[in-house]
Amino acid sequence: MLREYDCAFLDDVIVDGRVAHAESVREQYATDESPHEGRIPDAVVWPATTEEVAAVLEGANGRGIPVTPRSGGSGLEGNAIPTAGGIVLSTADIGHVDVSPADLQATVGAGVVYDDLNERLAAKGLRFAPGISSGDVATIGGMVATNASGFNAVRYGETRDHVRRLEVVTADGRIVDCGRNVVKTSAGYSLKDIFVGSEGTLGVVTEVTLGLVGIPEYRRAALVTFPSRVDASRAVADAIGSALVPGAIEFIDATAMKMINAYHDDVSFEERPTLLIELHANNSGIEEDLAFAKAICEDHGMRSWEAAAEENVDDVWQARRDKYHATNAYRGDWEVALVGDVVVPISRYPEIVEEVSQASDDLDLLTSCVGHAGDGNLHFTPLVDPDDEAMVERAHELNERVVRKAIALGGSATGEHGVGIGKRKFMCEEHGPAVDLMRSVKETLDPNGILNPDKVLPDG
Amino acid sequence: MLREYDCAFLDDVIVDGRVAHAESVREQYATDESPHEGRIPDAVVWPATTEEVAAVLEGANGRGIPVTPRSGGSGLEGNAIPTAGGIVLSTADIGHVDVSPADLQATVGAGVVYDDLNERLAAKGLRFAPGISSGDVATIGGMVATNASGFNAVRYGETRDHVRRLEVVTADGRIVDCGRNVVKTSAGYSLKDIFVGSEGTLGVVTEVTLGLVGIPEYRRAALVTFPSRVDASRAVADAIGSALVPGAIEFIDATAMKMINAYHDDVSFEERPTLLIELHANNSGIEEDLAFAKAICEDHGMRSWEAAAEENVDDVWQARRDKYHATNAYRGDWEVALVGDVVVPISRYPEIVEEVSQASDDLDLLTSCVGHAGDGNLHFTPLVDPDDEAMVERAHELNERVVRKAIALGGSATGEHGVGIGKRKFMCEEHGPAVDLMRSVKETLDPNGILNPDKVLPDG
Repeated sequence: MLREYDCAFLDDVIVDGRVAHAESVREQYATDESPHEGRIPDAVVWPATTEEVAAVLEGANGRGIPVTPRSGGSGLEGNAIPTAGGIVLSTADIGHVDVSPADLQATVGAGVVYDDLNERLAAKGLRFAPGISSGDVATIGGMVATNASGFNAVRYGETRDHVRRLEVVTADGRIVDCGRNVVKTSAGYSLKDIFVGSEGTLGVVTEVTLGLVGIPEYRRAALVTFPSRVDASRAVADAIGSALVPGAIEFIDATAMKMINAYHDDVSFEERPTLLIELHANNSGIEEDLAFAKAICEDHGMRSWEAAAEENVDDVWQARRDKYHATNAYRGDWEVALVGDVVVPISRYPEIVEEVSQASDDLDLLTSCVGHAGDGNLHFTPLVDPDDEAMVERAHELNERVVRKAIALGGSATGEHGVGIGKRKFMCEEHGPAVDLMRSVKETLDPNGILNPDKVLPDG
Repeated sequence: MLREYDCAFLDDVIVDGRVAHAESVREQYATDESPHEGRIPDAVVWPATTEEVAAVLEGANGRGIPVTPRSGGSGLEGNAIPTAGGIVLSTADIGHVDVSPADLQATVGAGVVYDDLNERLAAKGLRFAPGISSGDVATIGGMVATNASGFNAVRYGETRDHVRRLEVVTADGRIVDCGRNVVKTSAGYSLKDIFVGSEGTLGVVTEVTLGLVGIPEYRRAALVTFPSRVDASRAVADAIGSALVPGAIEFIDATAMKMINAYHDDVSFEERPTLLIELHANNSGIEEDLAFAKAICEDHGMRSWEAAAEENVDDVWQARRDKYHATNAYRGDWEVALVGDVVVPISRYPEIVEEVSQASDDLDLLTSCVGHAGDGNLHFTPLVDPDDEAMVERAHELNERVVRKAIALGGSATGEHGVGIGKRKFMCEEHGPAVDLMRSVKETLDPNGILNPDKVLPDG
């Protein structure tokens, strides 16, 4: 019998219409995009202001009620599943945006959706740059929580690199400003960095001041195919090791290309290991960089080089962005078992790509791979018959094997999706004694353990 | 009567020759480069390995003996002054360097000197990029401790942005690895970021894995003069706000130029408000960027534009680097009272530059300014007669006034020198309730308060 929490106090601190006790609403907040088991929370609340967030947390903390923060709900590791019940606190309605173009900076509410923000910024020639796949759903608050990144991190960095200041509400309801609206500072402990990537286990982010970049004047993209995965991944390692700084360098294996082609009526890419290379610049020197990139690809036996016309670049990226849906749609009732997400030092990228391939063969799984290769980040998605329990089990075995290999190569269990529920078991292997320090930080900032229980840290 | 600590245990944990109890040695470790009052420590120790650092800390922690970490001793805010006595722990002898060019990465001991590291890296076409003035003395450990940066941070970021992994020894002597050798990760709390910039108050950094950048193939530099400080600083704000990403953009006021000219027999720069602009690129598009930079300077009434020949660029930078010595040498027995270091949002840069000028006039002080202007970072150095107590007092009043103005403009009390002793009193004004969280972190990681007492956090 799961414990139920009395959340009646919410009606005293949040205006009517911003609290849901009805099961029909609550059940929509039981899961996220991950395959992890859901749980229906006891209440859902949508504060409109930081003060309301503080009131919810103060009340919950005093009563020992678990609070799971959430906004877009697009997490892939169970990051926003209310496993302990209690309250789901959605920051989706905190949606203000204040842009300061002269400072290349925007201050935004946690609930602002990534693509919406970038649409507003584009009118001013600016961009928040990590370049995530799920930008139509994911919010800035969620991106801060998981330290999200994606296609363009190879040039511009992960979310952490753009966060200048956070407004955070602590477990006991204090409102705290962390960081300043400057590009650098040496003034004390960088608290913002402890909240970035903490997945709502240390505090609830309500507002973020982000650094922005200018939209590049010149963009060139090319689809490059290779005889083998290893050739493609070696070309990536060589390009990055040669200090080329692409706008994006995406790896797409032959299986993934096949799925993308099958999903879209209007595309037919070559079904070979492929790199989608995009370069950014503000001057015509970009042509020299493009020639340099091409020469590196030639060194690694490239089969074809197709420059994408400027007007087609976004279409190619959209096809890549739809890859998750394409995979799910590929084979009747089969579905994606999980979305793997590992990162390794760039020189080891060919090895991790091979490991996925070898493990999939060993385990008799149909696995496709894409990855923000320039960062050493690889995603792999085993497609399974959900009714075949043994096959589902083998998909999780694949994940474990690849994660362990990534850690052994000096890499990390997650490049951008976060730990959530799914990656907790690897934390000791990856971090060793540092996990004890992480626990101390958690106990200090959330002594009652109300914030997003069962996430990030392994059981003690 | 200052308390003395019995440090005899050091002889049991550190080999002979790596411990000093003699006053003639100890007194050399009483101060750093700052004007703050020194104190002779009770012992100085130079561990050669991480295990020795752990043994020192474990022993000191059990005995309640203060430990002040130190390496280069080039701090400007009293960061390494052993104000409470006890042990000075120098990491200067931890000097290993292991470069992995394919991963654009180097793993180095805390005692490695910045310029020495870059000399070794240059042979491989690589660079650790923050670009600090005191690179001939400052060590990597010290740079991590203060989150140091300098000339090139505007393009490449501060030290924090390059730290992939830290090996840290905690107050109680545990050896902990924080972070992984990857360019991005979402695997748990970013402990490394809480140690970066903590000035040895939370742990002792023994080893650092740094991300590197390629040395740019093309470099262009120009010295540009303006009719007024305001014109020069507006040109900087305009360039950055236009998303130009220079390799460096340094502000040097007319007084500073006069001092630089007086110090060097072989230079005679124009004594007007000046920007030293440097651009970096790997292709010939750099000429377009240079033309763009020049057009912005023209918009702000530039008086002269002198392109520096490639072979002279380093000489010009050396003149700028010597500015501190030039200031001290400028007027007989007068000396630099303090080196101011504030940072503001770039759009407010003209205001902070004016504030220094106005405050110097009001307080009848001879103050010169330089600054890594592209970051909104400004240094100001009042020159005083050290025997004139009232004048010295006015210099500190100037500092207070400018720091308070920087904070009021949304900026920070220190851009790169750290808090040390000198900036503690501004922490509550800058951070508000976040200071309480910082205190909690300190109490968690150093419960006995042995690590670098009296630094960073204000008295509670």
